[in-house]
Amino acid sequence: MHYIGIDLGGTSIKGAVVTEGGTILKEASCPTQRELGPEHVAREIAGLITALAEGYDPQAIGGVGVGCPGIVEDHSGIVRYSANLHWENFDLRAAVQKYSGYTVRLANDANAAALGEVVAGCAQNVDSAVILTLGTGVGSGVVLNGKILTGCTGGAAELGHMVVEDGGALCACGRKGCFETYASATGLIRMAKEAMAQHPESLLHATAAEVGDVNGQTIFRAKEQGDPTAVAVVERYIHYLSVGIANVINCFYPEVVALSGGIANQGEALLAPLREAVAPQVYGNQYLQTHTRILGCTLGYHAGIIGAAMLPTAL
Amino acid sequence: MHYIGIDLGGTSIKGAVVTEGGTILKEASCPTQRELGPEHVAREIAGLITALAEGYDPQAIGGVGVGCPGIVEDHSGIVRYSANLHWENFDLRAAVQKYSGYTVRLANDANAAALGEVVAGCAQNVDSAVILTLGTGVGSGVVLNGKILTGCTGGAAELGHMVVEDGGALCACGRKGCFETYASATGLIRMAKEAMAQHPESLLHATAAEVGDVNGQTIFRAKEQGDPTAVAVVERYIHYLSVGIANVINCFYPEVVALSGGIANQGEALLAPLREAVAPQVYGNQYLQTHTRILGCTLGYHAGIIGAAMLPTAL
Repeated sequence: MHYIGIDLGGTSIKGAVVTEGGTILKEASCPTQRELGPEHVAREIAGLITALAEGYDPQAIGGVGVGCPGIVEDHSGIVRYSANLHWENFDLRAAVQKYSGYTVRLANDANAAALGEVVAGCAQNVDSAVILTLGTGVGSGVVLNGKILTGCTGGAAELGHMVVEDGGALCACGRKGCFETYASATGLIRMAKEAMAQHPESLLHATAAEVGDVNGQTIFRAKEQGDPTAVAVVERYIHYLSVGIANVINCFYPEVVALSGGIANQGEALLAPLREAVAPQVYGNQYLQTHTRILGCTLGYHAGIIGAAMLPTAL
Repeated sequence: MHYIGIDLGGTSIKGAVVTEGGTILKEASCPTQRELGPEHVAREIAGLITALAEGYDPQAIGGVGVGCPGIVEDHSGIVRYSANLHWENFDLRAAVQKYSGYTVRLANDANAAALGEVVAGCAQNVDSAVILTLGTGVGSGVVLNGKILTGCTGGAAELGHMVVEDGGALCACGRKGCFETYASATGLIRMAKEAMAQHPESLLHATAAEVGDVNGQTIFRAKEQGDPTAVAVVERYIHYLSVGIANVINCFYPEVVALSGGIANQGEALLAPLREAVAPQVYGNQYLQTHTRILGCTLGYHAGIIGAAMLPTAL
């Protein structure tokens, strides 16, 4: 059986035909013309599904799934809210069905990506995994026994919006001190800018002035070169990341917590000190024989497509 | 089919024969003589099981479960650590089997109590519930689709050990700023004592001096009498409780979050302002049509026994 997965993003719609085992057989994509409104975008998704299905026996298509940014309800088929798409209460399932004939299953895009990593990526063959994407925000998805944790609304697994420092940095969601405000790339850059302002003599400051920008890569590079300001920034960042990940482990105790997104590309330079910082914060760590493995994701943007394709089997 | 549930506590071992629907048919208990060591306690549990099973057709006993404080692994049968019992790596299943012939299923006592409330208490007929016990610490259990969330070790659902204020009050677990340090009865009393020291003129201070003690009841009573110090303490407490509960909802989005323990006896005096404080902190609250209900538990100590009895069906 084959499945079709669509990853709807703010700038592009990506899709693929995927095998049960998560292998991509055929890919296609088109830009997201969100300025033309949700009906238009739904028509584009339908067109992509139709193009992908071409050449396959309809009986061999086990189902179609769509990963969508925002608050997405599979039970109603409605995207309740998507800041990226500027959508509110849009019945995506009905619209895609109208234009393609296919009944799609829906999930938040981060939830779909988490499923993708479980099906075919870093968390294959595990019973429970939490995937965190460290980007503009902190996206997250939780997969338990092969099923996506959606809660009673589709709104579960918003781990980025767990307050870790009450009264701390203001989050886009309105709370103060959300994990996302510290552990996102945005959070890292904010902390770096604060530190650079205090330390204009730092290598971090000089590099940023030279490149005209400060980002995850320049911060980690300055740290590797021994710049004390960059070292302190990265330590602070890893501290917050460890607090949030330890919280996640104390909630779910999954077999795997895996990181994706730009910052996660730092690999072991990030993961090794992170594991060390997380361990003592895990409840019962010294008594338990089994420990959550903290890994890097392996599928990149394919995680979202593969996961979306597998939604019909995992909701 | 009937089930036998045992709730092992630091001071007493309580047990019952329970129907599939969670009705208690027969109860028994004995003191926990923990000073005589784990083998002795296991023998006492075995004796209680045997006494409870008496008069029932062995074929009609569908299974036996034990709820135990601490870090408990059902897959191995081992209690990895229990501060209350002073146990480390004790094979409780093997010991109980040796003395009773019954193979018991194991869970952390708070997890078992959560299951009890789902089977027969405030969260009957819901797909997902989180139960928080506001006592010396914050006990917690998560039930998803009728199954206890144990994670890969039995160590999941330690929601009290989620940091909500990084660098805050020191928790017994070693972290700083755990939810438990603010939302437990202990946390409330600590905040009250701090406020009383600053406001010796307060009614709260006078009441405490009169009664010779400060506890949840005296704090809420002084608040009802309009004492500004007590009002501020309760507001602060409810704030922290709301931060943790909103975190829990953003993680799990369960149908129900329910509270038990001494503080929860305040009923609507606690729950009404709490609901108001939680709502704006829930991610996507204004867009979602379904909201987590925040309730009081209804089973009292029976929750732990009923839940333990149902462990053979819910692990």
